Amino acid sequence: MARNALTPVTVVGLGSMGRALAGAFADAGHPTTVWNRTPAKAAPLVAKGAVHARTVEAAVEASPLIITCLTTFEDTRSALEPAAAAAALSGRALVTLNSGSPAGARAMAAWMTGRGARFLAGAVKNVPEAVGEPGTLLYYSGDRTVFDEHETTLKVLGGDTVHLGHETDLAALYEMAVGAMLLPALVGFFQGAAAVQARGLEAGGMVRFAEKWLDMIKSLLPVYAAEIDSGDYTDAASSVNLFLAGSAHDMELAKETNVDVAWLAPLHDLVERAAAAGHGDHSISALTEVLRKPAQKA
Amino acid sequence: MARNALTPVTVVGLGSMGRALAGAFADAGHPTTVWNRTPAKAAPLVAKGAVHARTVEAAVEASPLIITCLTTFEDTRSALEPAAAAAALSGRALVTLNSGSPAGARAMAAWMTGRGARFLAGAVKNVPEAVGEPGTLLYYSGDRTVFDEHETTLKVLGGDTVHLGHETDLAALYEMAVGAMLLPALVGFFQGAAAVQARGLEAGGMVRFAEKWLDMIKSLLPVYAAEIDSGDYTDAASSVNLFLAGSAHDMELAKETNVDVAWLAPLHDLVERAAAAGHGDHSISALTEVLRKPAQKA
Ligand SMILES: NC(=O)c1ccc[n+]([C@@H]2O[C@H](COP(=O)([O-])OP(=O)(O)OC[C@H]3O[C@@H](n4cnc5c(N)ncnc54)[C@H](OP(=O)(O)O)[C@@H]3O)[C@@H](O)[C@H]2O)c1
Ligand SMILES: NC(=O)c1ccc[n+]([C@@H]2O[C@H](COP(=O)([O-])OP(=O)(O)OC[C@H]3O[C@@H](n4cnc5c(N)ncnc54)[C@H](OP(=O)(O)O)[C@@H]3O)[C@@H](O)[C@H]2O)c1
Repeated sequence: MARNALTPVTVVGLGSMGRALAGAFADAGHPTTVWNRTPAKAAPLVAKGAVHARTVEAAVEASPLIITCLTTFEDTRSALEPAAAAAALSGRALVTLNSGSPAGARAMAAWMTGRGARFLAGAVKNVPEAVGEPGTLLYYSGDRTVFDEHETTLKVLGGDTVHLGHETDLAALYEMAVGAMLLPALVGFFQGAAAVQARGLEAGGMVRFAEKWLDMIKSLLPVYAAEIDSGDYTDAASSVNLFLAGSAHDMELAKETNVDVAWLAPLHDLVERAAAAGHGDHSISALTEVLRKPAQKA
Repeated sequence: MARNALTPVTVVGLGSMGRALAGAFADAGHPTTVWNRTPAKAAPLVAKGAVHARTVEAAVEASPLIITCLTTFEDTRSALEPAAAAAALSGRALVTLNSGSPAGARAMAAWMTGRGARFLAGAVKNVPEAVGEPGTLLYYSGDRTVFDEHETTLKVLGGDTVHLGHETDLAALYEMAVGAMLLPALVGFFQGAAAVQARGLEAGGMVRFAEKWLDMIKSLLPVYAAEIDSGDYTDAASSVNLFLAGSAHDMELAKETNVDVAWLAPLHDLVERAAAAGHGDHSISALTEVLRKPAQKA
C-alpha cells in the first residue's frame, strides 16, 4: 500500500502513552505529525519519520484525524486552546485517549462540538507497551461517523477496537467501571509481596500462583455479573460469611509480618455491613447492594 | 485399576468445599468415608458411594489419609478432639484444607504432631466447582513424606498440586499473600457494576472488558515482582503520579452514580503517601515500601 494512501494522523501529547500511540502510527506508515508541550519528547518520533509541529495549531492543521493523549480533559482543553482560537478544530475528527470521569467527557464533548470538531472520546485499556498489538483493547464513544471513517486507522493502536455507543461519556464510564479493579488488586498483590518478603522469601516466587489466582477471579466475573443483574444472590459459591471469617486472618498475618493493612479495614466493614443486612449466606456479589447508596435503590 | 488398589480417604467437613473434595474422591473410585457435624450434609456423598461415619473417631479410623475442610483451624481442632481423645490420630496422615493464618497453621501442626499425627497443611486455590480439574491449584506444606506417599491421591483434587516446603505454615502464608488480591479486586468489580447499573446498563455488558483487564493486570505481575525484589522502582510504565491523578476521577464518578467509594479513601491515601515519600515518578509497585511498617525496613 502506498504511504500516501494512509490517513495522516496527528498525535498531541507525547507522554508514556502518547509516544506509544504516535510510534504505532509512524511504524504503520501513516504520515504522522506530533506536538508536545515539552518539545524534546518529540525527538524519538522524528527519528521514526514523524513531523514535529512547532505549534499546536500547525499540528491540528496537518491531519484530518487528531489524537490527544494528555493527563486530563482539562489539560487537553488548555493545550488545544490556541488551535481553537485559530478556528483550526472546525471540521476535524478529534479523539481523546486520556483517563477521566464521564462528566469530564461530556464537558469535553461540549467544548469540542462548540468549536466545530467531530468528537470521539476513547480509552486505552492497556499499558503503552501493548499499543499496536492485535489483542489490545481500546474503546470509543461519541460520533459514530468518526469511528466508521477512521476505524482502520484506529485499529493500528490495538486490534480490539470497539465503539460503545453515541453517548460521548460511555467510554469514560466503562473505563472507570472496569478500571476500578486495578489499584485495589495491585495493592493486594503488593501487600502479599511484602508479607512473603518479611519471611525472607522473594515476591517472584508467588507470581505463578498469583497469575493463576487472577485466572480464577476472571472465571467468577460472569457468575457475579449475572447475580448482580438478576438481584438473586442466593446460590452462593463463596458467601459473605466466608469472607467475614477471612478478615481475622488478614489481621493476624499483618501482625506477624509487620505489614500495614489499614487499607483493608473499610473492605472488612463492607463485608460486615452486608452480613448485618442479611446477606451472610448470600454470594459475596451481594456487596454490590451495600455499595449502592440509599437514594440509588429502586 | 481395581477399586481396592486406591487409598481409602476420609473427608471431615462437608461444607461447600468439603462436599466437592469428598465428591472428587468418590468419583475417582477411592473408598471414601465422610463425617460432618450436621449429618444431613452427608446424603449426596452417600449417594455417590461414600460411607457415612457416625462419629469423627470412626471417620478417622476408616482411612490412613484424612482430609479436613472446616471453616478455621480452631473448628478443626474442636471437631477432631473426640478422635484425639481416643488416640485415633496417632500414625495417620492428616491434611487440613481450610483458610487460616500462618500462626494458626503452626498451632495446628503442634497440636497434630502432639497427638502423633503426620501433618500437612494445605490450601485449595480455587472454588468448589473447580475441584478435580487438571488446572486446579492446591498447595501443601509440612511433612514431605505424607506428600510423597499420597501425591497421586491428592492430585485427584486438582492437577496442579505443589509442596511448598517442610515449614508447616508456608501454605497459609502463600494462601494469604496470593489471596490478598481477591476481596479488593472483587469490590472494585462490584463498584464498577453498580456504576454501570446506575446508568441503566447491565453489569454483564462490562464482563468481557473486565476479563481482558484482568489479563492485563496478570501481565504486570512479573514486572512488579521484579521491581519489588530488586527495590528498583525507577523504570515506571505506570507511575505513582498517574494513579494520583486517577483518584479525583473516582470521586467524581462516585458522586455521579451515587456509589459508595469510602473504601477507596485509604488506597488513595497510600498513593499520596508514596508520592510524598518521593516515589511520584516511580512505578506504582513502590507502594510496597509504604505498606512495610518502619520496623520491617532494613
Ligand atoms: N501510561 C499508562 O499505563 C496509561 C494506560 C492507560 C491510560 N493512560 C492514560 O493516558 C493519559 C496520558 O498518560 P501518560 O502515561 O502518557 O502520562 P504522562 O507520561 O505523565 O504524560 C502526560 C502528557 O500530558 C502532557 N500534559 C499534561 N498537562 C498538560 C498541559 N496542561 N498542557 C500540555 N500538555 C500537558 C504532558 O506534556 P509534558 O511532556 O510537557 O509534561 C505529557 O505529554 C492519562 O490520562 C492516563 O491515565 C495511561
Ligand atoms: N467455598 C470456597 O469458595 C472456598 C475456596 C477456597 C477455600 N475455602 C476454604 O475452605 C474452608 C471451608 O469452606 P466452605 O466453603 O466449605 O465453608 P462452609 O460451606 O461454610 O462449611 C463449613 C464447614 O465447617 C464445618 N464446621 C464449622 N465449624 C465447625 C465446628 N466447630 N465443628 C464441626 N464442624 C464445623 C461445617 O459444619 P456444619 O455443616 O455442621 O455447619 C461445614 O462442614 C474455609 O476455610 C474456606 O476459607 C473455601
